[in-house]
Amino acid sequence: MLSSTLCRCGKEGFYLRRHSGEILCKRCFVKSVEKIVLKTIKRDKLIIPDDQVMIALSGGKDSVVLIHILSKIERSYDTALFAITVDEGLRGYREEGLGLAKRVAEKLGIKHHVITFKEAYGHSLEQICKFAEEKGVGLLGCTFCGILRRRLLNDAAMKMGATKVATGHNLDDEAQTILINILRGDISRLARLGTKPIRLREGFIPRVKPLRYVPEREIATYAYLKGYPLYERECPYVRASLRDEVRDLLNNIEARHPGTKFAIVKGADRISDLLKEKIEESEVGRCSRCGAPSGREVCRMCEVLSMLGIDGSFINHLAE
Amino acid sequence: MLSSTLCRCGKEGFYLRRHSGEILCKRCFVKSVEKIVLKTIKRDKLIIPDDQVMIALSGGKDSVVLIHILSKIERSYDTALFAITVDEGLRGYREEGLGLAKRVAEKLGIKHHVITFKEAYGHSLEQICKFAEEKGVGLLGCTFCGILRRRLLNDAAMKMGATKVATGHNLDDEAQTILINILRGDISRLARLGTKPIRLREGFIPRVKPLRYVPEREIATYAYLKGYPLYERECPYVRASLRDEVRDLLNNIEARHPGTKFAIVKGADRISDLLKEKIEESEVGRCSRCGAPSGREVCRMCEVLSMLGIDGSFINHLAE
Repeated sequence: MLSSTLCRCGKEGFYLRRHSGEILCKRCFVKSVEKIVLKTIKRDKLIIPDDQVMIALSGGKDSVVLIHILSKIERSYDTALFAITVDEGLRGYREEGLGLAKRVAEKLGIKHHVITFKEAYGHSLEQICKFAEEKGVGLLGCTFCGILRRRLLNDAAMKMGATKVATGHNLDDEAQTILINILRGDISRLARLGTKPIRLREGFIPRVKPLRYVPEREIATYAYLKGYPLYERECPYVRASLRDEVRDLLNNIEARHPGTKFAIVKGADRISDLLKEKIEESEVGRCSRCGAPSGREVCRMCEVLSMLGIDGSFINHLAE
Repeated sequence: MLSSTLCRCGKEGFYLRRHSGEILCKRCFVKSVEKIVLKTIKRDKLIIPDDQVMIALSGGKDSVVLIHILSKIERSYDTALFAITVDEGLRGYREEGLGLAKRVAEKLGIKHHVITFKEAYGHSLEQICKFAEEKGVGLLGCTFCGILRRRLLNDAAMKMGATKVATGHNLDDEAQTILINILRGDISRLARLGTKPIRLREGFIPRVKPLRYVPEREIATYAYLKGYPLYERECPYVRASLRDEVRDLLNNIEARHPGTKFAIVKGADRISDLLKEKIEESEVGRCSRCGAPSGREVCRMCEVLSMLGIDGSFINHLAE
């Protein structure tokens, strides 16, 4: 029962924000999303003056909205922005996102780079997945794609002098990850998940998530209002995963109890704030193979490469 | 693919513990469940010498298994046990559990008391639910039943000189509660949920849950092996709840990833241990109406009673 269908500014309502009951016109909706992002950046000091921010730009709606909003604040923050797209080499999947990423960056006047699995690891993800199948490695493609992609982003950020890596993770992503960590009892990861940039450790560039408090639905709506195409091609290697189940569960609960996703993320923030000092940061040494900083004897990238029978000896630029 | 269907003792296997891969014969299964319970009690000091333990005995399988196992260790622990059943006054529902509770306690030679909603609050739960409907109180019956029941148990424990209240919550219950608290972002409640008895506060008798690490399925199997009837009549006021959804989700995930429920509870234990000191215990004052210790101006019992239009002025024994 809505007593009015008008925005508080008097214009016709366009968006009903269910968890707060607000009705927003198009203009107030756009402003409100931007305000949430700016508030997050300020409050948690995600970006500070003189930061060199590398945006991970896949071409999907989240990263497109992220670069759009960051480009608006670039000047007032006196930061330098540049974007990077990881091309893992999946034909019929990556091309569209890559093209979109290029066009968006160009339109916004932001420098854009592409880095490829093929160049970094000697093989495309397509080939890597074939190796995994042949070797009977019982891991989802997403697992090693994630490990190899994160390493690539960090290496690129190091080389290009970035001081922050910004990713487009939204409220839904974060709530899902929190729940998955709870289901796995992985409290250390939960503690590291908070919004604030993880304290700088040599060799790791802090990752920040300015869209962490914006629901996926609002990002999609923002992208639509800004005229960006909704590119949502699914990775051909996606399999039914725990994340899918958790996503469905959360959407079902959110529909009946609006605000659940927020409650989860805010709750995890409190846990993270309280636990960060307590959880012993594992002493960060260096991977014995590639020399990258790692809490393990052999870093996860080297582990994955050796599982797949890929020679990683040429990857030594971080040992320098 | 089981390489053997024999128990490690050489006898024929009876139970496959999926999360550990163990195959157990009937005897080893029973011993193993008891060992888990004893280990929990010892490690977390749930019961110590000279404790006066009041067992909340509904007559359901969990509380029956609890009293059965506690009665076995009573002597070695030099504790006194007695049992109590709360009769909320739901005709066609409570009688069976009540009868069973009486018979079990008698068989084990443990003193048994019955306390009723009618006596304590002037009305049975049936009448209370009718009031709630008439008043349009938008709460599930379970909510006020839970509040009134917990208070009644605490009052009874105080009056009867108990030093601990033992309840039959099992691993499934605990994993569900943890997940529900996460979905609600209720971190304070998560922190208080751990296995160890909450530090004594005047007027609150610590509750302990010796079955916290035993899966529901193992409790049902133990009850069956010990010849207890599986009384599982459903409360007539039960409605589809968030807990039902969470239960289904957890059972689905556990089936594919055995050990998930354990992981959740162990993870929450770590959070609880780390947060307990940090989370400010709200200063415990006294309820301005009934005088019971409470972190609120008006305790939840008085809140519920006044919502339902029930005169609670006669409940003042705790203010003495």
